[in-house]
Formats: sequence, structure tokens, C-alpha cells
Amino acid sequence: MELSPRNDPEIGGAGVGDPSPILPEDPAGKPGRPRPWWVFVLVGLLLGALVAGAVAAAVVATQRSGSEAPLPDPSDSSPGPSDSSPGSGDSSPGSSPGSGDSSPGSSPGPGDASSSSTPPPRSVILMVSDGSGPASMTVARYVAYHMQQAAAGNVAMGADAAGAEPLLVLPEDFTLPLDRMLVGTARTRSSSSLVTDSAAGATAFSCAAKTYNGAIAVTPDDRLPCGTILEAAAVAGLRTGLVATSRVTHATPAAFSAHVASRSSENQIAEQQVAGATPLDFMPDLVLGGGRRHFMPKSVRGSRRSDERDLMAEAEQRFGATVVRTANQLAALLPSDPAAQPAFPVLGLFSDTHLAYELDRPTTDQPSLLEMTDFALESLGRELRQTGTPFFLMVEGSKIDLAAHDQDPGAHVHDILMYNRAVDRARAFVDEHPGTVLISVSDHETGGLTAGAEVGASPKSYLWHPGVLAAVQRSTDFVAAELFTFERANSPTQEAMEAHVVATLGQAFRVTDLTPAEVTAIAELAFFSRTTHTDAMLQALGNVISHRAVIGWTTHGHTGVDVNLYAYGGADAGANAAIVASLAGSRENTDIGRFVVNYLDLDLAQVTATLQAAGGALMLGPADEPAWPGAYTRGHG
Amino acid sequence: MELSPRNDPEIGGAGVGDPSPILPEDPAGKPGRPRPWWVFVLVGLLLGALVAGAVAAAVVATQRSGSEAPLPDPSDSSPGPSDSSPGSGDSSPGSSPGSGDSSPGSSPGPGDASSSSTPPPRSVILMVSDGSGPASMTVARYVAYHMQQAAAGNVAMGADAAGAEPLLVLPEDFTLPLDRMLVGTARTRSSSSLVTDSAAGATAFSCAAKTYNGAIAVTPDDRLPCGTILEAAAVAGLRTGLVATSRVTHATPAAFSAHVASRSSENQIAEQQVAGATPLDFMPDLVLGGGRRHFMPKSVRGSRRSDERDLMAEAEQRFGATVVRTANQLAALLPSDPAAQPAFPVLGLFSDTHLAYELDRPTTDQPSLLEMTDFALESLGRELRQTGTPFFLMVEGSKIDLAAHDQDPGAHVHDILMYNRAVDRARAFVDEHPGTVLISVSDHETGGLTAGAEVGASPKSYLWHPGVLAAVQRSTDFVAAELFTFERANSPTQEAMEAHVVATLGQAFRVTDLTPAEVTAIAELAFFSRTTHTDAMLQALGNVISHRAVIGWTTHGHTGVDVNLYAYGGADAGANAAIVASLAGSRENTDIGRFVVNYLDLDLAQVTATLQAAGGALMLGPADEPAWPGAYTRGHG
Ligand SMILES: [Zn+2]
Ligand SMILES: [Zn+2]
Repeated sequence: MELSPRNDPEIGGAGVGDPSPILPEDPAGKPGRPRPWWVFVLVGLLLGALVAGAVAAAVVATQRSGSEAPLPDPSDSSPGPSDSSPGSGDSSPGSSPGSGDSSPGSSPGPGDASSSSTPPPRSVILMVSDGSGPASMTVARYVAYHMQQAAAGNVAMGADAAGAEPLLVLPEDFTLPLDRMLVGTARTRSSSSLVTDSAAGATAFSCAAKTYNGAIAVTPDDRLPCGTILEAAAVAGLRTGLVATSRVTHATPAAFSAHVASRSSENQIAEQQVAGATPLDFMPDLVLGGGRRHFMPKSVRGSRRSDERDLMAEAEQRFGATVVRTANQLAALLPSDPAAQPAFPVLGLFSDTHLAYELDRPTTDQPSLLEMTDFALESLGRELRQTGTPFFLMVEGSKIDLAAHDQDPGAHVHDILMYNRAVDRARAFVDEHPGTVLISVSDHETGGLTAGAEVGASPKSYLWHPGVLAAVQRSTDFVAAELFTFERANSPTQEAMEAHVVATLGQAFRVTDLTPAEVTAIAELAFFSRTTHTDAMLQALGNVISHRAVIGWTTHGHTGVDVNLYAYGGADAGANAAIVASLAGSRENTDIGRFVVNYLDLDLAQVTATLQAAGGALMLGPADEPAWPGAYTRGHG
Repeated sequence: MELSPRNDPEIGGAGVGDPSPILPEDPAGKPGRPRPWWVFVLVGLLLGALVAGAVAAAVVATQRSGSEAPLPDPSDSSPGPSDSSPGSGDSSPGSSPGSGDSSPGSSPGPGDASSSSTPPPRSVILMVSDGSGPASMTVARYVAYHMQQAAAGNVAMGADAAGAEPLLVLPEDFTLPLDRMLVGTARTRSSSSLVTDSAAGATAFSCAAKTYNGAIAVTPDDRLPCGTILEAAAVAGLRTGLVATSRVTHATPAAFSAHVASRSSENQIAEQQVAGATPLDFMPDLVLGGGRRHFMPKSVRGSRRSDERDLMAEAEQRFGATVVRTANQLAALLPSDPAAQPAFPVLGLFSDTHLAYELDRPTTDQPSLLEMTDFALESLGRELRQTGTPFFLMVEGSKIDLAAHDQDPGAHVHDILMYNRAVDRARAFVDEHPGTVLISVSDHETGGLTAGAEVGASPKSYLWHPGVLAAVQRSTDFVAAELFTFERANSPTQEAMEAHVVATLGQAFRVTDLTPAEVTAIAELAFFSRTTHTDAMLQALGNVISHRAVIGWTTHGHTGVDVNLYAYGGADAGANAAIVASLAGSRENTDIGRFVVNYLDLDLAQVTATLQAAGGALMLGPADEPAWPGAYTRGHG
């Protein structure tokens, strides 16, 4: 049996894409394929768990009762929808291909979804904070608090803030949005190493299975494609979306929407993502991030393709996609009338390669992670409210990881704080849409970050200084480029270069106490070739910040520590019961995939069979054995 | 009002200690002082939470359904009690001083505690894995798995095991006992720093309040004593116990049983612990660990006292304590007849200073953490079963922290594995004694440990090797002492010293591929003074292991990362409801203290008032301002 997801480019239309949907779906958007017996058992269990869910909701309420101090949200232009009643509209024709059978317990009729006999449509928002270990989350919390206190004038910012932390006024329950939804931890090892890369880490989520480092949704032994939760959700008639701050062809988003033996085959990944190059022949309803270089014809400057295919044009033609390239274009896509439905699919590629770190972001060109998340949830939310069609959305804070590879604590923390803003937006969506579960997890830790390090001679310090990180204005990557550019443009003397270093770091890092040795070393690095000395420059710049913040690192690669696992089901009893039963505690990373499969009632095996039966092995491209498993080169994740 | 805990040295006797107990207690051992109105609300809530507790129990059951592979337990000589029916006996006279009022909802009668109308007596086992961060727990899990596989002949041990990890047969759900009870994380900062020391960390647990680094159960501003949960439990008529592998006067056990401005005042701490030097004038029923040097008269070799007091003799005279000094003596204290009651109090001091690392332990002299925990639970369990008297027990894996200060991954991990065995013993106790809650938490992370580090040149490695740690036979501390001793005894040539280094490390670490540079450097260090070069020697020895295991460290002090929080209530609905409501999620370390206060219905404020009204400030001793906050010197924790 071949399965194909729905991909109707026009709302209300029958779908001009190829192929037409073949799977029935019921009006509330629940998948309509025949269910195995255990589904009925599950439904019974979930009904029985309503009381339990209330308990879990009480836990959530307890966790939320702390001193909630979310960061100031710069994008207040997208308030939550006023109509938050899920399932209140009938489905429009065409958005529900097939009239569907009516499996008992899974077929909510139109009307009030809050009725206990009508479970709301189930959606999942899976957020991935790539490369954030437990220490990252701890550090981000206190940096956020320092910023809040600095904004209130209670404490100084920057390196001069060392020792001036407002500890005595720090409320014990100051927390970030993520803190208020911690449910456990995830074990991260891959099939080839105790230290995973992002490809194997994301495949654990997407295929609910371990694979080797470097693998994009393929099996470890025979390297055959494994069906992903995004694909299965699409096949089941759900809307699907991918949001990332990396290239959308990078490991994490790729592992939900493509199948290749090596993560470095990004051109093939792009073809599978938006040009129908898998037997499923679909594209997700939303693909937002960076990476145009793998979608542009070879002849276009900046392209990394080896052919003249224009995948953005192909997506428009094949799937009716709307393609946008700037933050402003994206914002304009959403009709101002909240009753008007958005146009799916949308392909938004806002940079030739990765998007910028939040600290460096050109705000009119590139949307923030919050803005992309908000667009996705507003679009998918309207669809959910108007047609009852639920969704699966993956949102990745991709560059958190890349900053840690560079041991750049400023870019790392500020991308985590933006990620927390996106989490807060998603939590609000869950509150407004019962049945939606928000999960946040990291694929692995990066950098061996710790809040505390050897500084100077004995006696050793029992402290670290969040104020130093709070004050940082630019990534080390940005500053390194600036210093190399200045040198090439001006051919300065050592003295002039040193003066430029002092001025630049003063502005970019708010560090005003550089030692002569630091200034000289950084200035000298700027005279070398950018090609050969970028790593050394990044290290020197990162050290300036890390030493003052008393932050430690052990590697430029990943580490194997368990990562934090967060989930939120709002006030929905079934969602909370499912979270408590299947996500709380110490979990394997594959449990996250299994949770989504069970919660959305997906059939990965059927998708896998479709992919493999259609000669899926042929599309896998060359394996990348020399580089994976076990190796790291700059630029990987 | 002055409060005094019960301290009856003879079972069944009225207590010859001074003072006699003044607080009533009901037959089931629940504290009998008048309860505020909210207690009744709480009781109502807890009854209402029975269903919720069943859910939580289901969660626990889920967590336990994994591949449970506890480490082989060398002490099978202490099987669980066959009579596990709590409250099945009436109290013996004298063990329940005062006949007590009968507060509604809190007065279980004799009979079957499993009846829904008779909540079982409530006890708490608080276990502290000092200096274990999230990475420590991750590392320990895979080392345990490697040991299991090596024992089965499936994989090699030692440095030659690098690259030979049995990953492909690693079941996804292989877990340690602690993994199966993870409920959240704890935020650890003190009132004086984002990086706590063990004194402030333990005071957060014991007084449920933040204080400054170095403080032993005193308030941060005026440095007045704060009542601890152990003291309040004793006052309420519960049995109390302290178990540690450090000196019992070290920060963590001290903060439950003494009040001084500086942790370094260990002589005063000892006086308060066992010689009645607080207004409460009691000693805990069990005090087991190291540290005789602070209890012995100055004239005894090894003493660190500045007077001729013999606190072990004073404990015998004042409180009728039984004093033991070896593991064999301790084991002999427990009557072989399981119906016979143990003698309280017991003061077991098994070393002049800290006990040995588990790797180095002289097994007839020093009990393991498991053996001490087993003795404590067997003793307290008999009392609970025979008289219905519940207890509060604190168990610390103290030297986990000290190993991390030395960046000794072998000693660190093997002490964590012994700690897990003790956890497993405590879990079994909870299973047999409904109403008992087991909590395990760390006070802070130490060392900035990560599983993954920069090794060699690019490309960087995405791996680490648990087999290297699994093979370690001795601590670096032990090996360092051996090398210095060999040099002093034999005055060897450099060549002979190098040969000895190769032989010793081959035996102690199972490392057989030492580089000539490593051998030379370590041999040269042995020729220096032990006084001046122990730190350098420890570093060189630790590096031998860490580099081969691909383990990273960032500091010899502590770090500020959130630590894992574990709790277990067995099948008891009330216990699980309390855990879910008050320990799950991201918590402040003070929440652990508050949980114990609420769960055991303790009154810290009354104890604090007693301590302060009696001139408690006078006993605090000198503050240690120059050293704390924010400083670390070797030997601290
Ligand atoms: Zn990475
Ligand atoms: Zn310590």
C-alpha cells in the first residue's frame, strides 16, 4: 500500500498538488485509517485518566505559580487569536480529504470541544533546543534575571558587574518559561556512540529509533529510510511544519523530512523536502529557516547545488507553495482578518545559509525564532480552529548548538533566551487550544559548558557572573569577521589594530578591562588569514567572555550528558495524563518519538514500508563514513 | 516554650538521658502537638489525592518497567524484614513519651495500615549525593553497564576497551536505580553566590532556607541558628539518623545537627552533635561515618581537638550511646533475631577523618555506604514495625564530591555506583514500608565534569569511553600516596621510579599504554615533597584516566548547574501525591526541606525559637569570612 500525505495548496480547494490525497480523514482532522484494537484500549485508558489529568494539571499549576518573569517580548504585534474555541467550525471541503470512517472515541463532532465526550483534536509542537545541556539552561535563567534587574536599574551590566549580582533580591522561584514545564531528562546516545550528533539525535525523535551519527532518518544497519512522525502526520491528514534557525537542510529539520545516509547530502535533502523526491511526494505545509544555497540553481551566486534546478520554483509549481525570502514578506502572508485562512504550503528561506545569531540578526530580512514560531502557530491555529485540522510542528533553536561549538557563551545564551520566548508563545497556544501538547528537548549537549571554572590561582572561586553574558551585544563570529575585514580594508599598524580591538570588543562585548596580553594576541590574529585563523580568533574572543563570566568548556564537539525534557499540556486532562505516563522521568530520546506516535495515533511502519517499497534505498546518496561516526569538523552540528 | 527531642537510650525504658521528653506523641509515632487549621486542610487534600497517588504510582510503575539491572550487591547478608506490616504492633511504653492528644486524621490506630482509613506512619529517607551533577549520573550509568557487560565477558575492560563499547547491545532502557525515580531538578545557588558550597547547600535542605557559603544551619544576616528538619523530627518524637562517608562533622551531616557560623568549626559541631551542646540537648539515634579526630581528646594521636574532652565517652554517658569503631562492630550490634529491637543511639565512627573511597576501602574496618544504610534502615525499620515510630534519616555519599574536587573520575564514579546500591536498598525499604518517602538529591555539581572532551587534534571526537572508568581499581589519592611513600622508602633512581609508576598505574588504573612523557612526568613528581606536590600529582594521575576516558573537567571547585532530583514513594498513594505535588519539576533546593517539613508535619519555627531563645548565638563560634563565601581550599567540600 502506498501512502501519500495531503498537500492541498489552496484552502478550500481539492488540492492541485500531485498526488491527490488517498487517505480518509474525519471532520475533526483525526486520522481516519482503521485503528488496531489497542487504540480502543488506549481511548478507554485516557478517558479513565481524566481525573489523573486533573492532578497533572494541578502539578502544572504548581509549577506555574512561581515568580513568572518572562522576558520582554519584542513582537507584540501578533496577539493570540480571540477565537480560541477549538473545533468550533465545520471543516471546509477539501481540507478534509475523504469523508472518513467513524472510529469510536476518535470522532469529535462539531461543537464545544470542552465537552467531556468530545476530546479535542490532538496536535503536537515539538521544540528542539539543539546543543543545550542542563548547564545551558541554568546559565540562561540567571542571565535572564540579571537582564531583568539591569533593566530595572538594580544592578550593573557587563564585566564590571562581576561580583554585583543581585543575589539577595533574587526570588527563589525566579524561573524561565522552560523551567515551568520540566518533566524529566532524556538519554541521548546514538547507535554508534555514547555521544550523538544532531542527525542521529533528530532521527531518534523523528523515527523513534536509534541510528548512527550522521544518519538522516535511515536505519543503522542497512541504511534504509525510516518513516518520520512528520511524514506519518501528513499521511494521516494533519498539517505539518518545520521551523529552524539553521539551513532547513541541516541535520535536525532534515531528519523529519528527508532520508539520506549522510547529513552532508544537503542538496538531496532539499529535493526531498520541497520537490517531491520521496515516494510520499509531498512537502510540509510550512518550511521556515535558512539555506537557500541548496535550493538555488548552480549559476546563482552563493548556490551550493551542482545542477540548475530551482527548488523554490519547483515547490511553487509542484505543490503551489508560496515562497518568501524576508521577515517582512513572511509577516505579510498572514491575512489581518483573523477569520481568513492562511495559504499553505509556505516555503520561507531567509538566508543563503544559516540564519544569524539572535545577537547579530538583521531584523527586517530575517525573522526571529519567535516570529517564525508565531507565524506558524497563528497559521496552523487558524486552520485548527476553522477546520478542526490538527498539526505536527517542529521548531528548532538550531544555532544554540553552533554557538557552543564555537565556545561563544554570549551567542549561546542569547539564542537560548530567544528560544524561551518562542516556548512562551507555544505555551500560550497550548493554553488556548486544549489537546495540543508542547514538548521541548535537546538532542544533546554541546561544548561541555559549565557555570564555574578555574580562574586564576588558588583559592578557587565558587561563583560565576551572569552579568558578563547579559551584556554581550554580538557573537564572536560577528566580531571575528569584523576584525578580519577591518585588517584587510585598512592594512593597519599593530597599534591601530589594537586600538580597533579595544573599541570593537568594548562595543560588542561591553568588556572594558581587556588586558594588554589579550589585546595584543587578538590584534595579531587579525593579521593572519581568515581561512586559517578563524578558529583561533573565535577561541580568543570567546575566552575574553568566558573567563570574565567564570564559564567553563571542555570541547568544541558534543558531550553525552542527559538533557532536560520539558512538556506542557495546559489544562487538557488527556494531554497531561499522556505526558505523565509517557514523558515524565528519565527517558530515552526515542521515547519522545514514541510519545508523538502514540499521542497522534500515527503509523510509522506503514510510512516506512511505503518509502522502502518504492526503492527508497536508491535515494540515499553516498554514506559519509570517513566523517561519521565519531568525528567533528567545524560547520557540522 | 522549650522543646526537647526524645532521646531514650534503652528500648522500652523511659529514657535516662537528660532532659526527659516533654512532648506528647501518639501511639503510631505521629507528633502530637496541636496542629494548625491548615493541617486538616492538608489531610483532606491528601485523602482526596488518593486517586492522584494511584496515577503517580502508575508513573513509578512505568519508570520501573525498564531493563532494571542493579549492580551486584555484595551485602546480601541483610535481607529485608519478613514482617513488613507497618503499625502492626502497639507501641512499647517509653518509646512513645506522652499519651498524646488525638488530632483527627493523624492518629492511626493499631492494625492494618493498608486500610484506607489508616494512613501509615510517615518517614523520610533523604539521600544526598554530594557533588554529583547531571553528567556524573550519566557517566555512572554507562560505566555500570560496561561493568555488567565486562562481567558477562561481552566486552574488554580498561584503556584497551576504548572503541569497544558494547553499544549495539545496550538496551535502550538500561538504567540505574536512581534513573527510575527521577522527578525533576533542583536549583542550587546560595544566598551569597550562584555557586553554593556544601554547607549552604545542606542548610537549604535542613532549614529549608538559603544561607551563605560556609554556614552550618545559621541564618545569612544575623547568623543565628535555624531549626533543622532532623531536630524538628526528633522533637516531634521521630527517630533520627545521620549517615555519611565523610567526617560526620563535615558540612552536609553537620548542617542537620549543629549550628555554627563556619563549617570549619568541626570541634564545636561534634559537641553539638553528640554532647548536648545545643539547647535541644539530644543526639540523633544514629550517627555513622568518619571523623573521630574531632571526638577524641587532644592527647590522643590523630586528634584535632584543642581540649581533653572525649566526646565518644560523653555520648555514652549522657545519652547512653553505643559507640563502635569498625564495620564488624557495627554489624554485631544488630540482633540476629529480627524481632529483637536495636539499641539506640549508636555512634559509629570508623576513621579518624573521612572514610576511604569505595575503591580503597578496608572492608573489615570501614563499612560501605550500603552497609551503613542497611544497618540504619534495618534498625529504624524494626523500630517502625514494632512500635510504629517513624523516622527521618539522612544518608550522604560524601566522597563523591571530594573525588570530583581532585578530578579523579574513577573514585567519583565508583562512589556514585556504591551510592546507587544504597539507593536501591532504600527503595526496597520504601516498597516494604508504605508511608516512607525516599528523596535523593545533590547539593551541587563539582568539577564541571562532562562526558566528552577535546582529545588530540581535529577532527574532534564525538565519543567517550566508560570502559576506562569501569576498570579503575584505586583512587588517584591512594596511588599518589603510594608513589610518594615508595620514593621516600626506597630513594629510587629516576629509572626505577619510572618502572614503579608503570607497574603501579597498570595495577591501579589498568592503564597499560602510558606514554613515556606521562611516565616521566609522574615519576619526577614523586621526587618532590608530598606536602607541596600532592595537587600536581593528583592532577597528573587524574589526567591519565580522564584523557583515556574522554572525560572533561573545568574546575577543582563547584559549579552552578541545576542538579537532578529523585523521589520515590513506592505504592503509597499519599506519598506519591505529595511527591508529584511538591517535588516534581524544576525546584529550588529549599523546596526539598519544605517537602520534608510538610510531609512529616514538622515545626521548624518552634525549634528555631528554642535555639535562639536559649542564647543560641553564643555557640556559633568564629565566622570564617576570609575563606567564605566564594573561596575554595583543598579539603573543603
Ligand atoms: Zn552540534
Ligand atoms: Zn565540594
